[in-house]
Amino acid sequence: MTPDTMLPPPLLDALQALLGPRGLLTEHADIAPWLADWRGLYQGASPAILRPGSTEELAQAVRLCAAAGVPMVPMGGNTSMVGGATPDESGRQVIVSLARLNRIRALDPLDMTLVAEAGVVLKTAQDAAAEAGCLFPLSLGAEGTATIGGVLSTNAGGNTTVRYGNARELMLGLEVVLPDGGVIHGLRRLRKDNTGYALRHLFVGAEGTLGFITAAALRMYPRAREQEVAFCAVGSEDAALSLFRRFRDRDEGAVRAFEYMSGTGVDLAVRHIEGIAWPLGARADHCVLLDLASSRPQGGLRALAESVLEEALDAGEVLDAVIAESDAQRAALWRIRDEHPEAQKREGASVKNDVSVPVSRVPELIRRSSVALTALIPGSRPVPFGHMGDGNIHMNLEQPEAMDPAVFLARAHDIMDCVNAIVRDLEGSFSAEHGIGRLKTDMMEDWRGGAELGAMRAIKSALDPLGLMNPGKVLPGPAS
Amino acid sequence: MTPDTMLPPPLLDALQALLGPRGLLTEHADIAPWLADWRGLYQGASPAILRPGSTEELAQAVRLCAAAGVPMVPMGGNTSMVGGATPDESGRQVIVSLARLNRIRALDPLDMTLVAEAGVVLKTAQDAAAEAGCLFPLSLGAEGTATIGGVLSTNAGGNTTVRYGNARELMLGLEVVLPDGGVIHGLRRLRKDNTGYALRHLFVGAEGTLGFITAAALRMYPRAREQEVAFCAVGSEDAALSLFRRFRDRDEGAVRAFEYMSGTGVDLAVRHIEGIAWPLGARADHCVLLDLASSRPQGGLRALAESVLEEALDAGEVLDAVIAESDAQRAALWRIRDEHPEAQKREGASVKNDVSVPVSRVPELIRRSSVALTALIPGSRPVPFGHMGDGNIHMNLEQPEAMDPAVFLARAHDIMDCVNAIVRDLEGSFSAEHGIGRLKTDMMEDWRGGAELGAMRAIKSALDPLGLMNPGKVLPGPAS
Repeated sequence: MTPDTMLPPPLLDALQALLGPRGLLTEHADIAPWLADWRGLYQGASPAILRPGSTEELAQAVRLCAAAGVPMVPMGGNTSMVGGATPDESGRQVIVSLARLNRIRALDPLDMTLVAEAGVVLKTAQDAAAEAGCLFPLSLGAEGTATIGGVLSTNAGGNTTVRYGNARELMLGLEVVLPDGGVIHGLRRLRKDNTGYALRHLFVGAEGTLGFITAAALRMYPRAREQEVAFCAVGSEDAALSLFRRFRDRDEGAVRAFEYMSGTGVDLAVRHIEGIAWPLGARADHCVLLDLASSRPQGGLRALAESVLEEALDAGEVLDAVIAESDAQRAALWRIRDEHPEAQKREGASVKNDVSVPVSRVPELIRRSSVALTALIPGSRPVPFGHMGDGNIHMNLEQPEAMDPAVFLARAHDIMDCVNAIVRDLEGSFSAEHGIGRLKTDMMEDWRGGAELGAMRAIKSALDPLGLMNPGKVLPGPAS
Repeated sequence: MTPDTMLPPPLLDALQALLGPRGLLTEHADIAPWLADWRGLYQGASPAILRPGSTEELAQAVRLCAAAGVPMVPMGGNTSMVGGATPDESGRQVIVSLARLNRIRALDPLDMTLVAEAGVVLKTAQDAAAEAGCLFPLSLGAEGTATIGGVLSTNAGGNTTVRYGNARELMLGLEVVLPDGGVIHGLRRLRKDNTGYALRHLFVGAEGTLGFITAAALRMYPRAREQEVAFCAVGSEDAALSLFRRFRDRDEGAVRAFEYMSGTGVDLAVRHIEGIAWPLGARADHCVLLDLASSRPQGGLRALAESVLEEALDAGEVLDAVIAESDAQRAALWRIRDEHPEAQKREGASVKNDVSVPVSRVPELIRRSSVALTALIPGSRPVPFGHMGDGNIHMNLEQPEAMDPAVFLARAHDIMDCVNAIVRDLEGSFSAEHGIGRLKTDMMEDWRGGAELGAMRAIKSALDPLGLMNPGKVLPGPAS
C-alpha cells in the first residue's frame, strides 16, 4: 500500500474508535473487490471502506471525514452501469458502504408504505412487500444485488416504469445524511406534503453527489391477482408501437411492461443461453414481450389480451403470438428478454447506449440508429431492445463477428456519438435510466450546458461546498 | 401613489421599451385588483404589473429587474389559499403576471403529452386533452381560474391524487426563467431521463421563490370510458376507511377519487346551496363520495361498485348508498362535495386546516381533532372533509352560531395549533396541498428546522442570491 492510499492517522484513529473493526476495513484484501465497477470500466484505489451500522454512526463518520477533507464515495450493491460507485485512481477517496443499514423499519399494508434502509437489497424489499400481500413494483436486472439506496440515488427505471414510474415515483420520503454530517429526517409517508422545496427529489438521481440516502419511505401497490404474458412477432417497429397503443388505450392501467426485442437479440439469446428457444413457429425480425397485470380478481385480462391481439393480427401488425399458460411459461418468456445482456456479452464485445425518446419516436430511433451504426462499422450488429412503453431503448451494438474486440471497443465513443446525434434530433436523452456516473460526465456540458448546468453546479456548491461527495461523478469538471 | 410605490425611472423606461403598453401596467386602477389574495388575508402594494408576451421577454425583464434590485412576485390565476402570489406592503415588489403566456404549444395523443405555457388555465388544459380523446387528470376547485404555472409552482393536489398523483407527478419537463434571467430549456417529454439533478422537481412546489415556470411538458392519460359515482352513508370514520380499502384492494387503478364528508358539512351544503338535498333517505354523520373510472370499455365498474358496496353493507360499514345513473346525477353528487367551501363561507367564519396524515390515520385525525376543537371553542363546529384516499383532510372549523366572527377568527392560530399538534403526533403534515405562501412561513422553523431548512436556505441562496424571487414566501426570515 502506497502512502497515497492511507488515511491521515488522526482520522484513522477517530474512525476506528467510532466504527470498530466491523465498520472500518483498511486491509487491501478487504478493499480490493470493491475498487472496480462490475462492468470493468474503471479501476480505482481507496485507503478504506467505511461500513457504518446506523444513520447516526454514518453522520458522525461524515463529520470526521469532512473535517479532514477526505472525499467519500457511497456504495450500495455496486451494480452501476456507469462507474457511479467506484473511487478514482488517486487513492484519496474512501468508500462508504451502506450495506449494514439493511433493516426494513416498517411495512404497512393499509397505508401501502414500506420504510427501508439504504442497504436493503431490492429483491428483499420486493419479497417483504409480497409477504404482506402487496407489490413493490420496481423491477430490474440487478434486483438481486442492487440496493434501495442505489436505486434511489440513480432513479432506477427498469421494466415496469410504463405502469408504476421510476424509483422516484415510488418514493414518498427520505432520510439523508448531508455532506456536513447533518441529518434530514424526512421519512414521511404522505401522498400530499407541500412544505417547502422538494429536497427528496434532489437526492433521488443525484448519484450520491449531494449526500447519503440512508433510508426511504416507499409506496407499495396491491398485489396482482391476474397476470398475462405474451410473446408476439410483429411486422415492424411501427407495428410494435401500434400494438402498445392498442393495449394502452384499451386498459392503460393493465400494461405493466411492454418490451421490444429485435430478432437479432433473440437469436443471440437462443444461441448462448441454455434452455432458450424461439417461442413461436418462426423466427421474426421484430418481437414484443407484453406483460399485463391487474389487482382485480376475474379482471378479464385474458379476454383483453386475446381480443387486442386478434385485432392486431387482423390489421397485419402482429404476425404470430403466444400467451403463457402457466407461471413457468411466463418466466420462460421473460427469460428471453432478461438474458439479452448476458447473451450479448457471450457473443463478444458490445457497446451500450441507454437512450430514451418520446414513445412515438421509438420506431424512428431504432431504424435510423441501425442504419447509421452499420454504416459506421460495417458488419456490426445492432441489438436494440428494451422498454418501448416508456421510450427507453437499449440501442446496443454488437461487434462484427470477425473483428478484434479491442478494435471494436476503441470505437465506443464514435458509436455513442452516432446514436446520440439521432437521439438529440428526436428530442430524447443520452441517459435514460443508468445515470451519468463517471462514464458520461463529459457529455453534460454539451447536453445540459448553460443555465441548466449552471444551476446544478450552484446546488452542488451550496450543499457540498468542499466537494467531498462522490467527486468526479455526474457533473463535469470546470470547462478547460 | 406614494414614492414608495414607483419604479426607479431608468428601470421604468427600460421595461416600457421592452414590454410595451400591453406588457406593463403602472396605473393604480389596473394594479389594484391584484394587490389582495382572493381569500382577503393580505393587502399588498406594488408599483407595476409586468405582463411579458413570451419567455424571452420575461427573461429580459427579469434581467432588468435583477440589475435594479427590484423584487418580483409571480402571479398565475391568483387563487392561492395562503397568500402565495400577493406582494408585500412595501410597494417595492413588482407583480409578474404570466397571463399572456397562454398557448398550448403541443399536444400528442400518441405520446400522451401536452406542452402548455404557464398562463394556460387548468380547465383549458383539461378541455384540450379531452378534445384529443385524452385525460389531463388534475382536478380542483379553482380549475376555472388557476393556471398551469400556478398549479405546478404549488404542486397542487385536488381530488384525483389517489389515482394520478399531484401536479408534480403529471410533469415531465419544465421551461424556467431563473432569477438572473437565464433560461432552462427543459421541456422534455420523456418518461426516463436521468441526466443530473432533477431541477424540474425543485421548481415544482417552490411557489415562485426560485424562478418562473414559463411552460411545462405534462402527462396525459387515456380518457375514461366508464365511470361510476356513488354517495354512501357510512357508520364511522373507520368504516369510511375500510370502504376505501375494499375498493383499492379490489381494483386499485379504478379509484379516481374517494372523498370523505361529515354530516355537518353536508348539512351546510343542503342549507346554503340551492338545489342540494340529502341524496339518501336519511341524514348520516359520515359520508363518502366514491368515483370509479376506467379506460376499458365494458370494464365492469358497475358490477364492481355494486359487489363491494354489498359486502360493505353486509359488514355493517355502509348504511346506505346510491349509485348515480346519469351524468347529471354524477354531477349532482359531486356538487355536494364541491360546494363545501362555499357553504362554509355562507354559514359564517371558518378556519381552514389543510393537513395530511398517513391514510391509515385519517379516522384518528378526524376524531381527535373534532374533540379537541370543540373543547377549545365550545359550540364551534368541525367540518372535516376531503381526500381520504390520499390522507389529505381539510380539518376545517366553523364558528359557533352565536359568536362574533371577528372573535372567532382571532382564535385562528389557536385552532391551527390545536389541529397541528394532533397532525404531528400522527406523523402528518401541516401543509398538504395548499403550500406555505405567506400564511405558514412561521411554521417552517418548527416543522422543517435544522438540516432540512438549512438545505432549503442554501438552495435559495444558490439560485437567488439577491433574494428577489417572491420574497417572504415559503422560507421564514432569519430566526430572530
